[in-house]
Amino acid sequence: MSTFPQEILSKAATTARGLSIDAVHACQSGHLGLPLGCAEIGAVLFGHALRHCPDHPEWLNRDRFVLSAGHGSMFLYGWLCLSGYADFPLSEIRRFRQLGSHTPGHPELGHVPNGVETTTGPLGQGIANAVGMALAAKMAEARFNTPEHAIFDHQVVCLAGDGCMQEGVAMEAVAFAGHHHLDNLILIYDANAVTLDAMAKETQSEDAAKRFEAIGFDVQTVDGHDMAAVLSALTRAREARGKPQLIIAHTIIGKGIPEVAGTQKAHGEGGAKFAEAARKNLGLPSETFYVAPEVSAFFGERKQAWKADYTAWVARFEAWQANNPALAAVLSAAPGYAHTPNATPAPAVDPIALLESVPEFAADTKAATRKAGQDVLQPLAAKTPLLIGSSADLYGSTLNYIGDLKAGNDDFTPAHLTGRNIRFGIREHGMCSILNGVAAHAIFRPSGATFLVFADYCRAAIRLAALGHLPVIYVFTHDSVGVGEDGPTHQPVETIPGLRVIPNLDVIRPADPEETAGAFAAALVRTDGPTLLALTRQAVPLLKDIPVKTRREGVLRGGYIAKRESAALERILLSAGSELQHALSAAEALGPGTRVVSMPCFSRFDRQPASYREEVLPSACRKRIALEATTSATWAPYIGLDGVALGIDRFGISAPGGVVMAELGMTRERILEAAKAK
Amino acid sequence: MSTFPQEILSKAATTARGLSIDAVHACQSGHLGLPLGCAEIGAVLFGHALRHCPDHPEWLNRDRFVLSAGHGSMFLYGWLCLSGYADFPLSEIRRFRQLGSHTPGHPELGHVPNGVETTTGPLGQGIANAVGMALAAKMAEARFNTPEHAIFDHQVVCLAGDGCMQEGVAMEAVAFAGHHHLDNLILIYDANAVTLDAMAKETQSEDAAKRFEAIGFDVQTVDGHDMAAVLSALTRAREARGKPQLIIAHTIIGKGIPEVAGTQKAHGEGGAKFAEAARKNLGLPSETFYVAPEVSAFFGERKQAWKADYTAWVARFEAWQANNPALAAVLSAAPGYAHTPNATPAPAVDPIALLESVPEFAADTKAATRKAGQDVLQPLAAKTPLLIGSSADLYGSTLNYIGDLKAGNDDFTPAHLTGRNIRFGIREHGMCSILNGVAAHAIFRPSGATFLVFADYCRAAIRLAALGHLPVIYVFTHDSVGVGEDGPTHQPVETIPGLRVIPNLDVIRPADPEETAGAFAAALVRTDGPTLLALTRQAVPLLKDIPVKTRREGVLRGGYIAKRESAALERILLSAGSELQHALSAAEALGPGTRVVSMPCFSRFDRQPASYREEVLPSACRKRIALEATTSATWAPYIGLDGVALGIDRFGISAPGGVVMAELGMTRERILEAAKAK
Repeated sequence: MSTFPQEILSKAATTARGLSIDAVHACQSGHLGLPLGCAEIGAVLFGHALRHCPDHPEWLNRDRFVLSAGHGSMFLYGWLCLSGYADFPLSEIRRFRQLGSHTPGHPELGHVPNGVETTTGPLGQGIANAVGMALAAKMAEARFNTPEHAIFDHQVVCLAGDGCMQEGVAMEAVAFAGHHHLDNLILIYDANAVTLDAMAKETQSEDAAKRFEAIGFDVQTVDGHDMAAVLSALTRAREARGKPQLIIAHTIIGKGIPEVAGTQKAHGEGGAKFAEAARKNLGLPSETFYVAPEVSAFFGERKQAWKADYTAWVARFEAWQANNPALAAVLSAAPGYAHTPNATPAPAVDPIALLESVPEFAADTKAATRKAGQDVLQPLAAKTPLLIGSSADLYGSTLNYIGDLKAGNDDFTPAHLTGRNIRFGIREHGMCSILNGVAAHAIFRPSGATFLVFADYCRAAIRLAALGHLPVIYVFTHDSVGVGEDGPTHQPVETIPGLRVIPNLDVIRPADPEETAGAFAAALVRTDGPTLLALTRQAVPLLKDIPVKTRREGVLRGGYIAKRESAALERILLSAGSELQHALSAAEALGPGTRVVSMPCFSRFDRQPASYREEVLPSACRKRIALEATTSATWAPYIGLDGVALGIDRFGISAPGGVVMAELGMTRERILEAAKAK
Repeated sequence: MSTFPQEILSKAATTARGLSIDAVHACQSGHLGLPLGCAEIGAVLFGHALRHCPDHPEWLNRDRFVLSAGHGSMFLYGWLCLSGYADFPLSEIRRFRQLGSHTPGHPELGHVPNGVETTTGPLGQGIANAVGMALAAKMAEARFNTPEHAIFDHQVVCLAGDGCMQEGVAMEAVAFAGHHHLDNLILIYDANAVTLDAMAKETQSEDAAKRFEAIGFDVQTVDGHDMAAVLSALTRAREARGKPQLIIAHTIIGKGIPEVAGTQKAHGEGGAKFAEAARKNLGLPSETFYVAPEVSAFFGERKQAWKADYTAWVARFEAWQANNPALAAVLSAAPGYAHTPNATPAPAVDPIALLESVPEFAADTKAATRKAGQDVLQPLAAKTPLLIGSSADLYGSTLNYIGDLKAGNDDFTPAHLTGRNIRFGIREHGMCSILNGVAAHAIFRPSGATFLVFADYCRAAIRLAALGHLPVIYVFTHDSVGVGEDGPTHQPVETIPGLRVIPNLDVIRPADPEETAGAFAAALVRTDGPTLLALTRQAVPLLKDIPVKTRREGVLRGGYIAKRESAALERILLSAGSELQHALSAAEALGPGTRVVSMPCFSRFDRQPASYREEVLPSACRKRIALEATTSATWAPYIGLDGVALGIDRFGISAPGGVVMAELGMTRERILEAAKAK
């Protein structure tokens, strides 16, 4: 501890307080409570404890720091600025929360090239993301380190407040972390006894240490303003083995603005009006956005030290690379690999080439698309070694196990860290948020499974994957009232429409096994956002009248002509998923002027050139009938006022699946009746 | 304990096992693990410990029993059948999971008139619903009991398995229960060490007792097959004061079918193929659906005893009623009041009459609709004494406090159980699921608030409110990119479209303060489903060119002509919420043939007679332009292929709200451009 630069870090903390006060004061919005209350914690982390490299912010072996309490974004921006991250100059701190700045209200992954590890703000998500990063780090160590060269040994530090700690998603994630002994996770709990509305005692009275000990964490409690104590706890936590680490740091929210400190008034921008007095009180000059020269000098020196660490790692990495060409080839497909020294970016994966590895289904196949998915997944996973699977206690139903599901011998466990299949337990939200963390960690390509209806549990995490451009894959099965006996609680009707409206999320609902192959390939080649595969519980026939190539590649375009009219175009039937078979059958009865369009993915179709969309759905043809076992609204953009969307605009029914489908009108006959009426 | 009828209850447990085996065997689906593993717990509860009355299943003061592990529905149906609930005769057990039966795959509230207290299946929800019922019971005691007549003293018993206990929503709810000392809640944890996919140890390793003690529960641990021990624990739990109660009951899943018992194979229908051997092994005759005459006789006697309890309560209730006419008048508005003796059902509330209590806004008003909501809520809450409000740590922003927000002196707390405002902490999902329990309890009308974007956290609970016809009210504010600086994590764009597709959910997005009045009235008069109010953060002008009556009552119809054309109808502009002002303004520029339609609630509009819808949106007029700060798909049904929906089909931006709105095209000018293009 003799080298711990207490005095200069104390000045740095004061500087960070000043930056936060000035930034929030300038825009009259934002949150001061955390940046002020955690200034000493920030100084210890960014001035001393974290292993990162501002000059190489995407260093694959950097420690990840996650600000789960994302509203305190000025904490992150301030320390990134002081640490010397090129994307966070003082000029961007001055533009806090303004149009086009690098410093939006909450940290946004990908909004600027670097320094922000994940998108936070919706509470609890950051904790679960951090768990995902720690999980990914464990997997990376196990997969890539060799006895000679440990290229991965980073840790994940997460700072969270009461808000995050109250959220269920965080509780699911920490239970998972405890169960899997993720000892590379350090969770710092900013215990300031205040929430936005009130003193925290109005809404909580738990013994946090005991609660975390019960789920397998080591717990330390410190005064969050005592920098030596914080460092000592961090050091102990970093060295501990076998359990994830919780540091409960008691802090005074808004410390530095005596008028509000320690109360809920400090949480938001309330303290900003005392900016001038606070600056004086902190010993800062009246100049705003002031950084003391000695603080700049200190971080300038630190930057050199960090760079030396990085350079040492580069030597290790290069030696590893030279000695382990096979491992290096695997790693080269990681999104984060592009930032390794002398990396030649891997070429984009061609979905059609990828599909060559997937055998065609036998002509008499009749299988659930979840089962087809299981078959398709195996060769694709073999081609995609960084693909990781998981399920929320439903492998037996979702069938997305990589390898032999019955043997179940490739689970990720503390004893088998190279396992490619993660058992998340009945924690759907935690799963999806943890997968976001794995994706943001930028080595593995994560996927996860549950019943489609439980997408509702995961929606906040799915949204953040879409917003953060994370290529997470959701294998969600039991996609309609075809679920049958389990009844309306387990039958999606509005679920798919509700997901289709999320920007940057591809929802793919394949109609048969070959479309399923196309769907998995589409998901695997996507790099800039999540893909959700909606698969049937019940068997569907192979649509063998449509060429295999058409079905597989049609999915990549989102919509395609499944059956072309053989006379002048009179009418278009549109459908998706397990209902497409009925549209094809109805078309036979409706005569040669009927076209059938398969629409497995609306958003992919919408991204096609206008000419292609016009070719598939000529605007002159207004007789359009859509059939899908979903609430009908999202079909309207393709149907218009002269067409009709035959859907299920109510909740389902408990009865055998075929009975329910017929009862709710998912039939050829309903199309024929509608065609007669129009 | 001397009167505890151990022997006959043991026979009852065997009978219940037989019914479950036969029901699951008959339909080849469903879950046997819990009904078999918890048969002794069921016998103790339904044969002895629960205070209910099968002849008066909706007795207001009954104990509520919630099967959170809803997949084990045959547990509930079997015991309701044996207890003598008229809606659950053996013939309905035989029709388990068939079309139109009273015994769907998972328990569904309202599917049959009685015996099922809430909809369960999506895991964790039942625990949170039970917490809501316990909360409502506490409030009912505090509001209605008098020193002379305690008409409410029921308890809530919830049975949950590992699945429920792993879910974050359950963790949020139990933390709330512990904090508020809900000692009328008894949570029985069916600790059978097995989940659907695997042994529970694959996904959890926590110390459950310690975890619950840490959040303020009393914890007992028993052998779940030892009926005397279960009863003793239940008795102790019922008598305990000051803390909610957890009973950890160790059970053998699927006990009764040795081939699968104690393993995950017992969870679902896997054991059903051993039905015949199991029946023999249990000492049951080969006759299926067998109920031993002595078991019938026992429950016949119990029914009389229960009826005597009920009759005694009726006398107490009638005395209370006679002595407390003012309190009785308040209670008479409760949905459950209709089932009290000699009740005259309260007349349906007329929204227009209700609105008379709300003063009109001053002509120069410019206010956020959340602020208007605060104003409107006060007189309406005065007229609706059973209305309960709540917020997930955002009262200062959502402004839905009943009474004086600044004083904050009507919080529900252990010391002030009559408080009408609940502080849920940062637990959105728990809040909404707890509100479902309050609504299902059928005395209070619950409402809750958070930021609209966090509807994603609550979606699973909102769905269940819609499915279960629960009239919960959501006051969700900060309804668009108008949120501004907080950025895309806090700016809904797809949120409203994603909610509009949920069947039986009314989503109302009022355009100005008077529409806000109409929106609150619409929510308050609805009895058969939830209503979500989406309110602005930012100020909007009063749309005073539209008569007050038109705006208020137009909301009740979902859509209405806000500005009628003064020449031949040429074009219709549609809008909702804060963007309606721009449509009205654009209409001025577009000339006399332009009509403006306000569409605050799509589902209410869709429920109007076809003639009204045609009057508002004449099908001959195809030039239609919609403007709303949402993803555009859900407007398409009103727009068609010839119109255009101007929306925001991307995530938002962090910057001042007005800047973001303009940047993303929520302007009069964008309408004018679109009108030119068409």
